[in-house]
Amino acid sequence: MNIDMIRAAAQRLEGHARVTPLLNSPFIDEIAGRRVWVKPECLQRTGSFKFRGGWSALSALDPDIRASGVIAFSSGNHAQGVAHAATLHGVPPVIVMPSDAPALKIANTKALGAEVVLYDRGSEDRDRIGSQLAEERGLTLIRPFDEPQVIAGQGTTGLEIAAQAAAQGVTKADVLVCCGGGGLTSGIALALEADAPDMRVRPVEPEGFDDVTRSLRSGGIERNNRVSGNICDAIITPQPGDITFPIMQRLCGPGLVVSEEDALHAMAQAFLRLKVVAEPGGAVALAAALCRQDQIEGDDVIVTISGGNVDPDIFARSLATLK
Amino acid sequence: MNIDMIRAAAQRLEGHARVTPLLNSPFIDEIAGRRVWVKPECLQRTGSFKFRGGWSALSALDPDIRASGVIAFSSGNHAQGVAHAATLHGVPPVIVMPSDAPALKIANTKALGAEVVLYDRGSEDRDRIGSQLAEERGLTLIRPFDEPQVIAGQGTTGLEIAAQAAAQGVTKADVLVCCGGGGLTSGIALALEADAPDMRVRPVEPEGFDDVTRSLRSGGIERNNRVSGNICDAIITPQPGDITFPIMQRLCGPGLVVSEEDALHAMAQAFLRLKVVAEPGGAVALAAALCRQDQIEGDDVIVTISGGNVDPDIFARSLATLK
Repeated sequence: MNIDMIRAAAQRLEGHARVTPLLNSPFIDEIAGRRVWVKPECLQRTGSFKFRGGWSALSALDPDIRASGVIAFSSGNHAQGVAHAATLHGVPPVIVMPSDAPALKIANTKALGAEVVLYDRGSEDRDRIGSQLAEERGLTLIRPFDEPQVIAGQGTTGLEIAAQAAAQGVTKADVLVCCGGGGLTSGIALALEADAPDMRVRPVEPEGFDDVTRSLRSGGIERNNRVSGNICDAIITPQPGDITFPIMQRLCGPGLVVSEEDALHAMAQAFLRLKVVAEPGGAVALAAALCRQDQIEGDDVIVTISGGNVDPDIFARSLATLK
Repeated sequence: MNIDMIRAAAQRLEGHARVTPLLNSPFIDEIAGRRVWVKPECLQRTGSFKFRGGWSALSALDPDIRASGVIAFSSGNHAQGVAHAATLHGVPPVIVMPSDAPALKIANTKALGAEVVLYDRGSEDRDRIGSQLAEERGLTLIRPFDEPQVIAGQGTTGLEIAAQAAAQGVTKADVLVCCGGGGLTSGIALALEADAPDMRVRPVEPEGFDDVTRSLRSGGIERNNRVSGNICDAIITPQPGDITFPIMQRLCGPGLVVSEEDALHAMAQAFLRLKVVAEPGGAVALAAALCRQDQIEGDDVIVTISGGNVDPDIFARSLATLK
């Protein structure tokens, strides 16, 4: 896993994934007490950064192997990213999803051409289900984060951040990344190590699901006690990955943790000031910039919005915080 | 008013205005029955394309004249675009707004650094107030659309559309533009005449406020009977401009007209499928692509989203259409 893989992924993604812009707002700067630069991956194809990793992984497969089909397990965004990348490659995707995933994400994944297999998050092991289906049908498993070509794809976000921030004169900043298993976080960290070495990546997680933050603190992989029951579902995983954690341990600063209310507040600011739709899990990094100012260093902070696949009812809850 | 002015404006805007991406979604394509490419100027600074015209006009002024300050009349997007462009130039903006404008818009315009002068719609003449202030203080008036350097700035949107569409292999399409006084519409039309001559610009307006559509049909300037009472307030003006209309007459195809309900429906699809926030007036072009398929030609259609400055209550109404 290295920067050359990320640069190669960027070449494969060119013309297929979107180069998302870097947004800012004087109103958000004022709340945050520093300049805030926002990388809205909610504007990526399928509404999250996951399309990058999906396309990277699909396009890196041997064509004969790829033609047999792929499988992924995901709460939603990886599902859509892989499903769309696969069908655009002419490959049939099978997606294993938790039965409590947002209805919108399940419906979208089906509509993007995937065969969806549901499982119970509390009682069943998605890794085992995925591996078994892959073996039975000769499918290639595209892991959501602990997969080098997926990390390489997510890392292309970091190449863009480095270039777009430099164009604004910003070369030194904390870079807050919405963090589940660490694919986006470790990918961006590797990209910035090469292209913006004065930047420091910091994972941001929801309260009660701060496995990466605790793992970085203890120096060993820590697990979450539970993996459901939070509106930030998109970025909740049992524990950091075996590939992603050592990268994060080497390159990342301390994690940050925000509440569900903080995430809803950040979604509302993204609506009001940036005109983008963030899902709760996708808003935690912006939430940290807005609500954890004293834990952040420097005049500039860069935040990812990792996705925008949110049900209208939850979005309406965020709008209600503006009253 | 010519393409060279638009190209010169593009140079002045570089690094200051955002290059907004070109978005699409297979779900929106399916509703529309053709490929739909969306230029989301809601992601522009200050939340609408008006920043382009504001920056273009400010940056084109003689520095000595500019230093004395600028003035604009607006209760909406032009106010914010000019105010932000002016303060970024170190120039004090005066914005004349009706005292019954929404408190949030007044607050935002002030927060962007403007001196806001309120007038009473019922008893005071804003033109007299503006002229008097301009004369007393030596301020330059920045008109909202009938102003060559403003049109040149809005036209830079068209240069980007031509390049971004060509990168997707699209050189022939109807280009639907949310239309008020015609600054954006005529600017894009001039840009595409030069850079994408097989594209055809078509203005889109709200039902009951279709002055441009009727003017194009009759061949002379037609007025609206009223200028308020529609949620698409951002794109309602009394009549097309003296500069913009001849350009539209020469270059544009027939206008399209949509209802308030169509606009709310399009806002909901922009939320759901593109993850961007559109205001009602900013959603009329997308609404036409979704609801007026039989009046549009070709396999591809390009639509602008002109702005995203919408109150949460109205946005919630659009979300409710998804139920």
